[in-house]
Amino acid sequence: MKRIEIRKPDDFHIHLRQGELLKMTVPHCSAYFSRAVVMPNTIPPIDSASTLEEYRRQIVEIDPGFNPLMTFKLLKNMKESDVRALKKAGAIAGKLYPAGATTNSTDGITDWRDIAGLLKVMEEEQLVLSIHGEDPSVYSLDREKAYIPEILEICRKFPGLKVVFEHLSSAEGIQAVAEGPDNLAGTITVHHLLLTLDDVIGGALNPHNFCKPVLKGPEDRKAIQKVVLEGNRKFFFGSDSAPHSAAKKQEGAAGSYSAPVSLALLAEFFDGCGKLPMLEDFVSRFGAEFYGMPLNEERIELAEESWIVPEAYGEVIPFFASKVIRWIVKN
Amino acid sequence: MKRIEIRKPDDFHIHLRQGELLKMTVPHCSAYFSRAVVMPNTIPPIDSASTLEEYRRQIVEIDPGFNPLMTFKLLKNMKESDVRALKKAGAIAGKLYPAGATTNSTDGITDWRDIAGLLKVMEEEQLVLSIHGEDPSVYSLDREKAYIPEILEICRKFPGLKVVFEHLSSAEGIQAVAEGPDNLAGTITVHHLLLTLDDVIGGALNPHNFCKPVLKGPEDRKAIQKVVLEGNRKFFFGSDSAPHSAAKKQEGAAGSYSAPVSLALLAEFFDGCGKLPMLEDFVSRFGAEFYGMPLNEERIELAEESWIVPEAYGEVIPFFASKVIRWIVKN
Repeated sequence: MKRIEIRKPDDFHIHLRQGELLKMTVPHCSAYFSRAVVMPNTIPPIDSASTLEEYRRQIVEIDPGFNPLMTFKLLKNMKESDVRALKKAGAIAGKLYPAGATTNSTDGITDWRDIAGLLKVMEEEQLVLSIHGEDPSVYSLDREKAYIPEILEICRKFPGLKVVFEHLSSAEGIQAVAEGPDNLAGTITVHHLLLTLDDVIGGALNPHNFCKPVLKGPEDRKAIQKVVLEGNRKFFFGSDSAPHSAAKKQEGAAGSYSAPVSLALLAEFFDGCGKLPMLEDFVSRFGAEFYGMPLNEERIELAEESWIVPEAYGEVIPFFASKVIRWIVKN
Repeated sequence: MKRIEIRKPDDFHIHLRQGELLKMTVPHCSAYFSRAVVMPNTIPPIDSASTLEEYRRQIVEIDPGFNPLMTFKLLKNMKESDVRALKKAGAIAGKLYPAGATTNSTDGITDWRDIAGLLKVMEEEQLVLSIHGEDPSVYSLDREKAYIPEILEICRKFPGLKVVFEHLSSAEGIQAVAEGPDNLAGTITVHHLLLTLDDVIGGALNPHNFCKPVLKGPEDRKAIQKVVLEGNRKFFFGSDSAPHSAAKKQEGAAGSYSAPVSLALLAEFFDGCGKLPMLEDFVSRFGAEFYGMPLNEERIELAEESWIVPEAYGEVIPFFASKVIRWIVKN
């Protein structure tokens, strides 16, 4: 039986949600990840030092050993002093959601030029800019591609600002980051790495694989897998784990709850490609290096051992529910 | 208020289903259509003179004034004598489902060359070949395109066989029919005419717009609309109305129940494009001419008058449920 021990990973993009869901998501995340970049699209959003501090308090109360990397949501009416206060309160990144692009984003930004002053302050304060890179005004399969020029212009205009193109889903997005400036990197989810749109609409409709950006075609998945397996350090893991209640899923909400399965699935993927030794860089090194953070010292062990993903955690149906994964995390 | 009177239309592709559903689908269809080509993918399938006669009996019992145009499902183990018997029993077309392409098609045909003998008999017997033109082995958005060479080869090999490329969904499929041989025509559904894949996955997931072939992009829809609005007689209406119980939809079944709304939506579409006088050819002429049938003499009146589609018919949620349609059929 194969085994591997690696630095405990980081998840550079996660939705921990609120209330009852938080009590489930925090332990599921902290079991596998030392740190996680916590997305700010709560209701109401994390948009001030006080809301950030309160959200962090709630997270750490559930698991005092977990290290949440806090973010805030960029809003049109935000002041530059708010950004500085958020930095002081411990924010490491600000998230730009184009208005209407995804869950809880109706209050997002229509044009990033409207918040250029805030981006300038973020550059000064060494805050990372995290971007949901989709233009929601175009056809869904073209939304990521359509947003690339915006991201490249932001990178040019703010050369000292680190920019993360989140949850890359298209060959064009991958290429833009790979060939883009040094201040641009990208996160990759386990669902975009492993699946295509066929896993949503190819057979029976599967709402549990429905996420934003929507899964793309085989050529896009191939491009994603290629940069990951090459060990390109501009690409690192961010799960975009995004649980919804059964009721929300019933209403068509986008998002897969991958936190409990993503690390095991990544081990299976790397091993299946004969690249198991490269897993550690993707999940435990490249992201920390881009963000400028020390690597984790804690270690975690994985083994080639099959298990069946539960059909549900409470009322949340996880990614890969009821399926077999051939690797397991040994806690 | 605008009004128009036209020959009562035909629906050249409909799923009437069985049992309790049949009691709903037949009146909904016969209210708007004099005749309809009834798809044979029941369980068990319509594959013999006796099953065809029994299915027709059940349909006509519900509405003796309705004229169902019966079809059969091509199966690998079918004999040439079966095809001749089906013709004698009143079949007008045989349906080729590539195995695995859609609802109840696991018993479909892997390679049409396996049934070339049956196709030859169909050609002799002047039976129309109706094809679900998708290659299920490739990426969902490419399946129709991938099947085009097969259809063109069938047309070449059996020049006396009339072939219908059903429920066209892609620009490539439209082009293949438009530029294809004279023995090839295509049906167009109201959902492929009006919607794109964004109406399934572009916002919240919408299972009621999920159908096979899956809806495609804006350029595909534009190509579909173009041939319809040009009055190209190789393209005619087939609703592919395909109701499912709430339980089946919950399991991800593909299909929209459009029978109760399709004619009103078509009137709205043609009128919105300033082409209302062209509606009649699309729904009441081109299909009958291709099939070689007399035009209907009965007439039907439509008026520009708004109504709200019911949220459900029994447990079936119809296409355009709860939405406003600006045209209505006056019975």
